[in-house]
Amino acid sequence: MDSNHLTAIRDLVRTFVNERDWDQFHTPKNLACAMNVEAAELLEHFQWLATGSAQELGAGKLLEVRHELADTLVYLVRLADKLDIDLGAAVEEKMVLNRAKYPADQVRGDARKYDQYKS
Amino acid sequence: MDSNHLTAIRDLVRTFVNERDWDQFHTPKNLACAMNVEAAELLEHFQWLATGSAQELGAGKLLEVRHELADTLVYLVRLADKLDIDLGAAVEEKMVLNRAKYPADQVRGDARKYDQYKS
Amino acid sequence: MDSNHLTAIRDLVRTFVNERDWDQFHTPKNLACAMNVEAAELLEHFQWLATGSAQELGAGKLLEVRHELADTLVYLVRLADKLDIDLGAAVEEKMVLNRAKYPADQVRGDARKYDQYKS
Amino acid sequence: MDSNHLTAIRDLVRTFVNERDWDQFHTPKNLACAMNVEAAELLEHFQWLATGSAQELGAGKLLEVRHELADTLVYLVRLADKLDIDLGAAVEEKMVLNRAKYPADQVRGDARKYDQYKS
Repeated sequence: MDSNHLTAIRDLVRTFVNERDWDQFHTPKNLACAMNVEAAELLEHFQWLATGSAQELGAGKLLEVRHELADTLVYLVRLADKLDIDLGAAVEEKMVLNRAKYPADQVRGDARKYDQYKS
Repeated sequence: MDSNHLTAIRDLVRTFVNERDWDQFHTPKNLACAMNVEAAELLEHFQWLATGSAQELGAGKLLEVRHELADTLVYLVRLADKLDIDLGAAVEEKMVLNRAKYPADQVRGDARKYDQYKS
Repeated sequence: MDSNHLTAIRDLVRTFVNERDWDQFHTPKNLACAMNVEAAELLEHFQWLATGSAQELGAGKLLEVRHELADTLVYLVRLADKLDIDLGAAVEEKMVLNRAKYPADQVRGDARKYDQYKS
Repeated sequence: MDSNHLTAIRDLVRTFVNERDWDQFHTPKNLACAMNVEAAELLEHFQWLATGSAQELGAGKLLEVRHELADTLVYLVRLADKLDIDLGAAVEEKMVLNRAKYPADQVRGDARKYDQYKS
């Protein structure tokens, strides 16, 4: 198993959930809530920092960030699984849209949101 | 390229960011904010629904959910990249901790948070 | 002091922050992060529940929800304070816009987002 | 009516909701989701900024922040209303707990989370 493959993570989570009979709680809505909760637990580590670099975080907080990232990814993969969404295909598809919304030669070095480029 | 491999997504995002000279905005803190914003845009589609099943969402909203999931994953992978975190290893590591925190024979069919099992 | 008045809460928070010399951390961005973190801690109590009614929460969780609501409000009021925003006036102003976006006779009993009414 | 009084905001929201027959959607869980969604829309305005000061935001974004703060407060007040929570009393109660958790003479000028002070 290659643990950096999204189907491997999906299968790992499926097994974990089935062993605990937790599928009954895994509505897409509940999973979307849980993913947001984990994402915010990650944000908590950064809220008072300047940039949140590995150095600024320090080893202890970096480990916690690592675990919160894992938790967020687990719920993200589980939500995609319950809605039969192929995440790799979704990312490819969305990046095509992003390339059209943010043409490199127009937005280079500028972080304004794309809809500010329309006018 | 296998688009369901996290290193493929990481490389796709790196190219996209470098073409736009956006790395300067990608502090871990800013990426954690952006990931939370995308996760909440996903949640918005579910906020008034009962369960958010594919049927309840309908085709139009399901496509939007697919795109918000992709956006959230892109920022998640980018944040891991900037902190040199191997996501696959992090998930494996966290799932070992989760197995210890939520022993299958004690939590089966029960969604209470693990710290309620301590007493 | 009437503790349900937003200026009373603002003043209570100002005193608390000044006693701790924490104003230096209270950039609007950091406070927006902190408000989101508290809001998600509140959401955590609801993530696996059906409706999150007082009965379903139970007394213990209801008390925790009460405290998370307070924390969220404290950061919200502090953020408004740092940006010189009069929250009462902002709510009045926004409700006028909401009344225009969601005319009662068109949206009655329907929770779809307003932009679905445009076509 | 004093629009900075939380009971005035509560009553304004009650009227708005009743005119639209939207109370049926206002479970505490749904309102917690909606509050998080609005809080993240606010965060979006800050995600690529340094501090998010009024000057850095500029007049246009400051107005949007003002509206997102109002939206977040509206859902916060509505959620408290549905759970019969007196927000002013909750804030007073929580600030007493915060004073005990973060004694001014121990935490002055230090933003670390309180549980790091225990050891």
